[in-house]
Amino acid sequence: MNYVNWSKTEKKIAREAFDKAYERECAYLAGRILEKANQIKKPEDIWELHDFLTEKKKEVDQKYDYRYSMLELVFARLIKDGWLDFTDLKGLNEEKIEQLQRLLRLSKSDKNNKDVPV
Amino acid sequence: MNYVNWSKTEKKIAREAFDKAYERECAYLAGRILEKANQIKKPEDIWELHDFLTEKKKEVDQKYDYRYSMLELVFARLIKDGWLDFTDLKGLNEEKIEQLQRLLRLSKSDKNNKDVPV
Repeated sequence: MNYVNWSKTEKKIAREAFDKAYERECAYLAGRILEKANQIKKPEDIWELHDFLTEKKKEVDQKYDYRYSMLELVFARLIKDGWLDFTDLKGLNEEKIEQLQRLLRLSKSDKNNKDVPV
Repeated sequence: MNYVNWSKTEKKIAREAFDKAYERECAYLAGRILEKANQIKKPEDIWELHDFLTEKKKEVDQKYDYRYSMLELVFARLIKDGWLDFTDLKGLNEEKIEQLQRLLRLSKSDKNNKDVPV
């Protein structure tokens, strides 16, 4: 990813959107955990929940990467996964919005291509 | 721990008691997990639950060591922690019961001594 310039206003919008997505995803995750906790019937279910959380922790740590050089990719992924939409990013400059749209089109058109980063 | 002989009958009793303790401890753990899952209010609570489970997994893996050479220590620990009582071990020979009682007395009389294995 090339160097991308973020204005002060954009940084504020980006931070808020990033935090909002994180909160939303974690709230959803909390719901799944509660569901799984309610379904524990045998010891194995406990360790399955542990493995599920380990996997999610890894996934979330990797996904929520707040480096400005990565942020377009991060936002495209968050939009794709449903944790953000373009209204959350209102105020970013047109170039960045177009770049997000490009990344999302690329991802939609080539789901099986591992080279597509989103 | 010295070599301890376990008769066929004793092995059956030991296995049943061991499994019973494991089931009991896991059932209690499931209750604590559900309680924690119900109390998730913010993302950090999710990762705290993950760390709690990682710790419990390690603890349970270490504690439930079904080697006959270790079993007296394991049972003494399980009795001490309340997952077993002597009625669960009815049928073990007198020598083993006395050894368990010795280990428990040792543990009670010297709680701060790290050399006490139970």
